[in-house]
Amino acid sequence: MNVKPLGGRVLVKPLEREERTKSGIVLPDTAKEKPQQGKVIAVGSGRTLENGQKVPVEVSEGDTVIFSKYAGTEIKIDGEDYLILDAERDILAIVQ
Amino acid sequence: MNVKPLGGRVLVKPLEREERTKSGIVLPDTAKEKPQQGKVIAVGSGRTLENGQKVPVEVSEGDTVIFSKYAGTEIKIDGEDYLILDAERDILAIVQ
Amino acid sequence: MNVKPLGGRVLVKPLEREERTKSGIVLPDTAKEKPQQGKVIAVGSGRTLENGQKVPVEVSEGDTVIFSKYAGTEIKIDGEDYLILDAERDILAIVQ
Amino acid sequence: MNVKPLGGRVLVKPLEREERTKSGIVLPDTAKEKPQQGKVIAVGSGRTLENGQKVPVEVSEGDTVIFSKYAGTEIKIDGEDYLILDAERDILAIVQ
Amino acid sequence: MNVKPLGGRVLVKPLEREERTKSGIVLPDTAKEKPQQGKVIAVGSGRTLENGQKVPVEVSEGDTVIFSKYAGTEIKIDGEDYLILDAERDILAIVQ
Amino acid sequence: MNVKPLGGRVLVKPLEREERTKSGIVLPDTAKEKPQQGKVIAVGSGRTLENGQKVPVEVSEGDTVIFSKYAGTEIKIDGEDYLILDAERDILAIVQ
Amino acid sequence: MNVKPLGGRVLVKPLEREERTKSGIVLPDTAKEKPQQGKVIAVGSGRTLENGQKVPVEVSEGDTVIFSKYAGTEIKIDGEDYLILDAERDILAIVQ
Repeated sequence: MNVKPLGGRVLVKPLEREERTKSGIVLPDTAKEKPQQGKVIAVGSGRTLENGQKVPVEVSEGDTVIFSKYAGTEIKIDGEDYLILDAERDILAIVQ
Repeated sequence: MNVKPLGGRVLVKPLEREERTKSGIVLPDTAKEKPQQGKVIAVGSGRTLENGQKVPVEVSEGDTVIFSKYAGTEIKIDGEDYLILDAERDILAIVQ
Repeated sequence: MNVKPLGGRVLVKPLEREERTKSGIVLPDTAKEKPQQGKVIAVGSGRTLENGQKVPVEVSEGDTVIFSKYAGTEIKIDGEDYLILDAERDILAIVQ
Repeated sequence: MNVKPLGGRVLVKPLEREERTKSGIVLPDTAKEKPQQGKVIAVGSGRTLENGQKVPVEVSEGDTVIFSKYAGTEIKIDGEDYLILDAERDILAIVQ
Repeated sequence: MNVKPLGGRVLVKPLEREERTKSGIVLPDTAKEKPQQGKVIAVGSGRTLENGQKVPVEVSEGDTVIFSKYAGTEIKIDGEDYLILDAERDILAIVQ
Repeated sequence: MNVKPLGGRVLVKPLEREERTKSGIVLPDTAKEKPQQGKVIAVGSGRTLENGQKVPVEVSEGDTVIFSKYAGTEIKIDGEDYLILDAERDILAIVQ
Repeated sequence: MNVKPLGGRVLVKPLEREERTKSGIVLPDTAKEKPQQGKVIAVGSGRTLENGQKVPVEVSEGDTVIFSKYAGTEIKIDGEDYLILDAERDILAIVQ
């Protein structure tokens, strides 16, 4: 079952707390309730600028990313939790 | 009876809960009152940019889409419920 | 007596409830106090973009249109109720 | 004594209620306190767009116009009431 | 002692009430506390548009102008009251 | 120790009350707590416009300037008080 | 473990109070709880303008910078505190 984000949006699988501590990145305590890290599953075609040009999304499928808390829309696909985020506004960094 | 959305808007037939669980996508519990999935029935000519160019709508008739809760304007056509949505702002992804 | 809307505005004659049910389109109950359908009587010259270009209004005289509730300014001409609406912002669709 | 509006502004002489009913246009009851019709006395040179171009004001001296309630700044010239309005934002239509 | 306004700003010497009644222009009673008329003493180089172009200020030194109440920043120069105003936003008209 | 402001910002050394009265410029009483005059110590490279062009800052090192009250960020350098201001938005005029 | 900020963002290691007094820059008392100085660890590719052009970030790795209080998102990497900031909006100056 395939979900294709639109425009400058991306589909992200949030990482659970343990997975995050293995990656060395922990977000301040309040983060416990709200995941702020996850894996990019699919990316949109990019945001359209006022001159009609498309800005490609800066992250790619498979990247581990850090995003703003409380960002995006939660959806469940085949019983799993996912988030649809605005790449430019919500995603802060890539964990390499 | 034919309704043609204007500009960057689209006409969507919201999917009822059962139809959505068959598609594998379920939205968090609160979604029960507000549908967030539906089928695209008609699309507008696209949004006009500040340089006068028209940005075609990214979804097409027949697509199943996921949209933000509480978005759009509800209308009834021949007794059936429909929503008029702003494609770029309200529609998050296409379910393929 | 002739009223010529300015810029991207249009003059609309709101349809009463009975006229609307004949057209097959009924808006949710709350619509009863506020009409959301009407006939386009006159259109303005269009909105001016930041590059100086005029965007022609997408609806034409005689079109039956659906518009956002509470939109526009009410005026009476020769004892009849009319609305002055912003075409791009307030008009959602054309009923064909 | 001559008042020259600046930019996209216009100087308007509001019409009293009787003058308005002769023109056939009456605004809903609440309009009684606030005039919404008037005659254009002088027009500015037009608004400057972000590309440096001037957009000429769409109304001319002598036009009878309908404008949004509560719009503009009131001034008295030689004991008479006038309004300074933003043409594009405040003036809705011309009565021909 | 010379004060040179920056960008699209102007330096204005507010007119006292008597000076204003001689000019024939009186502003509604509330204006008594806040002057809305004055003489242009100095003008800035103009506002910079998003295309880098400078928009020259539409008023000149010596003009008598009408401006929005509560606008600008008050300063005293050599014991006299002055106002620094944004020309395009705060100044409504020139009294000729 | 050298502080280089970024973009369209400037570093300003606020003038104390006595220094200001010598310059002939006094700001209304409320100004006593908040300095609104100062000397430009360093300027940034200028603001970037949407077309990529840099707008040079209109003030230069050594200028005495008047700025909006409560503007900017206070910092202490080697025990002395300074302000970091946005040149276009916060600085109103140059005292020549 | 490497964190690559996106767009116009930068990764900053906030300086503790003692480190800041050695640099000669102290921020007003309220700053004690919130660090406003730090070292740039990594920079993003720059902000995308409406004409599609990228604006390179004005600071570089290794710079000591002053930033607005309460700005950015806190993250811990390998047990150390870091901040992800918007370079143009949050960073005020470089300490040279």
